[in-house]
Amino acid sequence: MEKENSSQMLPNKQIVLKNHIQGCPKESDFELKTTSVSTEISDGCSDNAVLLKNLYLACDPYLCHLMRADRHSLLTSSSLVPGSVVKGQGVAKVMKSGYGELKEGDYVWGVTGWEEFTWNFDPQNLLTKIQNYQHVPLSYYAGILGMPGLTAYAGFHEICCPKKGEAVYVSSAAGGVGHLVGQFAKMMGCYVVGSTSTQQKVHLLKTKLGFDNAFNYREVDLRSELNKYFPRGIDACFENVGGQTLDEVLLQMKTHGRIAVSGMISQYNVNEPHGVKNLFSLIERRLTLRGFVELDYKSMYRSYVEWALEKLQEKKLVYVEDVVPGLENAASAFVGIFHGHNVGKRVVVVAED
Amino acid sequence: MEKENSSQMLPNKQIVLKNHIQGCPKESDFELKTTSVSTEISDGCSDNAVLLKNLYLACDPYLCHLMRADRHSLLTSSSLVPGSVVKGQGVAKVMKSGYGELKEGDYVWGVTGWEEFTWNFDPQNLLTKIQNYQHVPLSYYAGILGMPGLTAYAGFHEICCPKKGEAVYVSSAAGGVGHLVGQFAKMMGCYVVGSTSTQQKVHLLKTKLGFDNAFNYREVDLRSELNKYFPRGIDACFENVGGQTLDEVLLQMKTHGRIAVSGMISQYNVNEPHGVKNLFSLIERRLTLRGFVELDYKSMYRSYVEWALEKLQEKKLVYVEDVVPGLENAASAFVGIFHGHNVGKRVVVVAED
Repeated sequence: MEKENSSQMLPNKQIVLKNHIQGCPKESDFELKTTSVSTEISDGCSDNAVLLKNLYLACDPYLCHLMRADRHSLLTSSSLVPGSVVKGQGVAKVMKSGYGELKEGDYVWGVTGWEEFTWNFDPQNLLTKIQNYQHVPLSYYAGILGMPGLTAYAGFHEICCPKKGEAVYVSSAAGGVGHLVGQFAKMMGCYVVGSTSTQQKVHLLKTKLGFDNAFNYREVDLRSELNKYFPRGIDACFENVGGQTLDEVLLQMKTHGRIAVSGMISQYNVNEPHGVKNLFSLIERRLTLRGFVELDYKSMYRSYVEWALEKLQEKKLVYVEDVVPGLENAASAFVGIFHGHNVGKRVVVVAED
Repeated sequence: MEKENSSQMLPNKQIVLKNHIQGCPKESDFELKTTSVSTEISDGCSDNAVLLKNLYLACDPYLCHLMRADRHSLLTSSSLVPGSVVKGQGVAKVMKSGYGELKEGDYVWGVTGWEEFTWNFDPQNLLTKIQNYQHVPLSYYAGILGMPGLTAYAGFHEICCPKKGEAVYVSSAAGGVGHLVGQFAKMMGCYVVGSTSTQQKVHLLKTKLGFDNAFNYREVDLRSELNKYFPRGIDACFENVGGQTLDEVLLQMKTHGRIAVSGMISQYNVNEPHGVKNLFSLIERRLTLRGFVELDYKSMYRSYVEWALEKLQEKKLVYVEDVVPGLENAASAFVGIFHGHNVGKRVVVVAED
């Protein structure tokens, strides 16, 4: 009790999930609350705990899935419960540390809360120390140098298994992960076409990001568009959308094609998932459909991040960041990604260090 | 012309597809016709052609898919067109050969017609010479020692990638492929549960075939049954059924589980495929869903067949054959497999050598 009494209390603005999400997420599903956080760890909690000052939060589409009631049978410990603070990936500064590998002033990326300050009780598994931030914005660790970057890199190389000259399709291609996958594919000597939701983003893909072609899926018939750009079929698909898109992709794959299932943004905000009907194509075309999360590829992180830092410095890799200032805008920033409002990786700034 | 005049004509009973199949195949979708076949090859045809006397025909479920009009967009050269003789896998004796690797009197297995005599114009790719038939019935080459056997072996080992002690689920487990998969899984030291369509077959799986357990999917709720037999989830699934079964399996898989998609018997006879809704499980559980056909594993055939012959002789492998006599019964034999009438591999006897 003495320990608790000696602790300082800090006001802590938080984004709290008000209710389970139904259909498309709305700003009213969230509320901004101000609570307080103790700067001292409570008795009985792990000695390893660290207190984080959150700097950047990633608007990752998969979070929507964790906020739904109807999918909870599938979920494990990561579900987000109404009344609790939203949790996701972010970049933070260590304020206090009971964990030997981190000290005050260190920067980390990993799982944190959508709030100003967060106690993290499992830093060993949930946080990665940021080693290099001299030449890049720290926010990059909520994107290209963090989870989305490794997702793109590992998923493309380990699951799409691309070969030079192969035809690659990337859905949600101007998103935080997709716009990296397209560039990785070009570096491999692949032919790459991406789909996205606005003409502005189509232009971005075709010019700044070097895609061979791109189209606005809202303005075309997906089947004929895929036929047009992939007359001989798709060798590898990096799938971020799911649902109807995946159904069409199954009909356009080449024999022995690979589909890396990274996300299903079209399915996070529907109450009834789209029933995929063309799975017979798996047999007929001998396809591999494989889901993954970057966690399984953590061992690749160090070498990936060194490689990506080098490519960024050489300007051979472009990272598109969509920065939204202020924790109070986090809910609207998050909701916007389900309407295609983001260009590249959307990141919310909580504090500027 | 002289050559043609010298040729002998043989009467040739055939099973002809009358119309594209809609819904479940019916006997009336087929007709028995008697035509005639020349024993001499026509001018202009490949010198490689061989004339086959068909002995055994395999009732393979996938043939139904090839007989449908509405799936033809997906299909290549293998579609079966109304008015033409049904084509599938079988065992035959070579009567005439223009192909150096085969001579009169040789036995082969591979693609042939549902008729008494068939000219095969691509024996190199479509036929495999039978080397060993002293100790096993020739009909086994339409099953365990042919395409279904290699399907079971390659799919289980190369796609299910089983490890000792893992939990394996086999759907359509008393079928021509499934009853072999279960035995291969037991040989690997796996825990194996299979589903089938009658109590008689449940009994067969649990006794003669050594499955750890089995259930009649028609009498239970699939979800609770899978929960009961796989309380910690399924590591590897050998899927022969598709549709609703696949949807349920996706919810019961363990993290990093593998699903080998060998067949989708539930989907061959419906006009509208079941829409699979639980594909998000692919991401959440990092699953691999992979379709295949045995063609891709032809290089494993020789070693597989030697191994299987040895296991059969040692009585460590049981092969269940469901033999239907007479080409005139082929349509009804084939239709029956979609109602679960077969026990093991259903084979039609055209001639006894």
